[in-house]
Amino acid sequence: MLSKKEIFHFDSLDLECGEVLHNIDLAYEIYGKLNENKDNAILVLHALTGDSHLAGKYIDSDLKTGWWDKFVGPNKAIDTNKFFVICSNVIGGCSGSMGPSSLNPKTNKPYGLNFPFITIKDMVKAQKRLIDFFGIKKLISCIGGSMGGMQALEWAVTFPSYSLSFIILASSAYQSPQNIALHEVGRRAIMNDINWNNGEYYASARPDNGLSIARMIAHITYLSDQSMHHKFGRRIKGKEELNFELHNEFEVESYLEYQGRSFIQRFDANSYLYITRAVDYFDYGDGKLKLALQNKAFDERVKFLILSFSSDWLYPSYQSLEIVKALQYNNLAVSYADIQSSFGHDAFLLENEKLSPILKAFINF
Amino acid sequence: MLSKKEIFHFDSLDLECGEVLHNIDLAYEIYGKLNENKDNAILVLHALTGDSHLAGKYIDSDLKTGWWDKFVGPNKAIDTNKFFVICSNVIGGCSGSMGPSSLNPKTNKPYGLNFPFITIKDMVKAQKRLIDFFGIKKLISCIGGSMGGMQALEWAVTFPSYSLSFIILASSAYQSPQNIALHEVGRRAIMNDINWNNGEYYASARPDNGLSIARMIAHITYLSDQSMHHKFGRRIKGKEELNFELHNEFEVESYLEYQGRSFIQRFDANSYLYITRAVDYFDYGDGKLKLALQNKAFDERVKFLILSFSSDWLYPSYQSLEIVKALQYNNLAVSYADIQSSFGHDAFLLENEKLSPILKAFINF
Repeated sequence: MLSKKEIFHFDSLDLECGEVLHNIDLAYEIYGKLNENKDNAILVLHALTGDSHLAGKYIDSDLKTGWWDKFVGPNKAIDTNKFFVICSNVIGGCSGSMGPSSLNPKTNKPYGLNFPFITIKDMVKAQKRLIDFFGIKKLISCIGGSMGGMQALEWAVTFPSYSLSFIILASSAYQSPQNIALHEVGRRAIMNDINWNNGEYYASARPDNGLSIARMIAHITYLSDQSMHHKFGRRIKGKEELNFELHNEFEVESYLEYQGRSFIQRFDANSYLYITRAVDYFDYGDGKLKLALQNKAFDERVKFLILSFSSDWLYPSYQSLEIVKALQYNNLAVSYADIQSSFGHDAFLLENEKLSPILKAFINF
Repeated sequence: MLSKKEIFHFDSLDLECGEVLHNIDLAYEIYGKLNENKDNAILVLHALTGDSHLAGKYIDSDLKTGWWDKFVGPNKAIDTNKFFVICSNVIGGCSGSMGPSSLNPKTNKPYGLNFPFITIKDMVKAQKRLIDFFGIKKLISCIGGSMGGMQALEWAVTFPSYSLSFIILASSAYQSPQNIALHEVGRRAIMNDINWNNGEYYASARPDNGLSIARMIAHITYLSDQSMHHKFGRRIKGKEELNFELHNEFEVESYLEYQGRSFIQRFDANSYLYITRAVDYFDYGDGKLKLALQNKAFDERVKFLILSFSSDWLYPSYQSLEIVKALQYNNLAVSYADIQSSFGHDAFLLENEKLSPILKAFINF
């Protein structure tokens, strides 16, 4: 399946922080065909550093497919023979959508730290414009994992009538203090890079090492103690004995370094600052979700699917259960499963054999 | 109780990496009195960034006591009316013992990265010299938490006859790949600091921000998801509403920043590199502990106490149980408890009401 990145352009967006964004680009990709009634669409929302490249390849020779290719395509869990699938990038990002690396018309230079703060609600409001552009009044489903799950939940709160179902994987109704803390050290690693220059690095060397460290921290949180034992153990890298060196003795170190190095090829440090902050601000905790869902204009057929993963310590299962309880409190139909997996948070990207039947059954019911 | 830091000096030490250290200083503190038979001594070993200041104050006006003051003193779990308590700093450190910030006689400048790599075994071999200096042939107990527990385990392997008991808290027989990974990102944060200068920063500005970030990462691992909820929640710092700022919106961020800033007042960045590496190298995993304990010249009365803490995700309880199994395999007397606590890894420093009776009973039995 070949995919193509498209850019949706719209005039302006009022942000939660009080500022207004103008002349906005939003990257997206579409798969399958929108039917005449425009009632076969599914919106998929990506995680922190994801993008609109959900499935397939741009050209046949691409080495990598989109980030949820296991789940999206002809005859897959999200069947593109049947559904019209939209994956929207987030504003604040750096993969075709407006973000800190975009040109600020006032200065003719990239925004950098002059870019206004964005929130999950702002991301969702931008996506709503895209759905309007397609003329879609009712989605089959609004689906996301991790930060994508936060967006799906925000869709339910802000545009409740716009989807027949909401699927939230490996996510939470709020960012926990532990996760705020983990984001904070990542941000500091970027801002302590010699090249960061208060965010004005676009015309010179970039804060690659700092961004790479931030990614390494984050990557640890995507795995699990168990999966790291299994994947790396204490194996030393390409040699028989320890060398007594500060770096790259152990396979796990080389792997993380590789993850950091790959990441900086595709991500902008300022976008990382802004998007982590947006996640930190997400807060339907402490009973707020119960209230936020009250008396909303949901479709009478609406249903929710909440999925957590047993070894996910970034968004542990109890946080998914808190969402379930808030839905039940509001008499909303909800299915929940805690899927046994050793893959940690990344399980929502990897456990296709366990996940696909669940998703397929839920979406097609 | 007033305490005083002492320096023990000895000639040389053969290191595991193959190099030899000369003219070694080792900082220590002592509490209580060594009896005539020299058979009432307890050796306490500190964690990663601890030091010899175990208990009491240096002067009455000190704001802080030693790091295990809750447990060590007259009539406390480790009763200094009864026992002679020694706390030895580790080589490689920066609190009075020889380490990378010590003067290299060859260059008349601090060693920096010319300091040889050290291991947990090297630390223990240095401590053994201190025990010999006191003329102690048999300790009542050899006790440590976290990296201190690794040292206590190494004492059991390397000098088995030298203690009647070994107490290992919140520790492991090996450093897991997850923990190697967490150390690695801390080290990279230091080495990416503009002031790090390949470890030659002693005559100029120090890599404070990098070291502070490393400490912030580590500090997160000392707490637990639950204790962070309880301690900070999502409270915002000293204001009513979010300001939309990249730093210091949330209390947890300010707390971490404070921890980082405090740490750089007392710790040397190169020592942090060397000591984290020593921990990474610690490896009695994959059945190696079983073998290492076989046919050792333990006192016939020897006994072990292994304690883990339910919310410790840095050295999870299963890792303590692996130690227990290796001891049982060798028919060594072992008591084990998994103490229910929400304090995470730090529980071994904080849970004095739960821990003190256990320690007291075990030591005095």
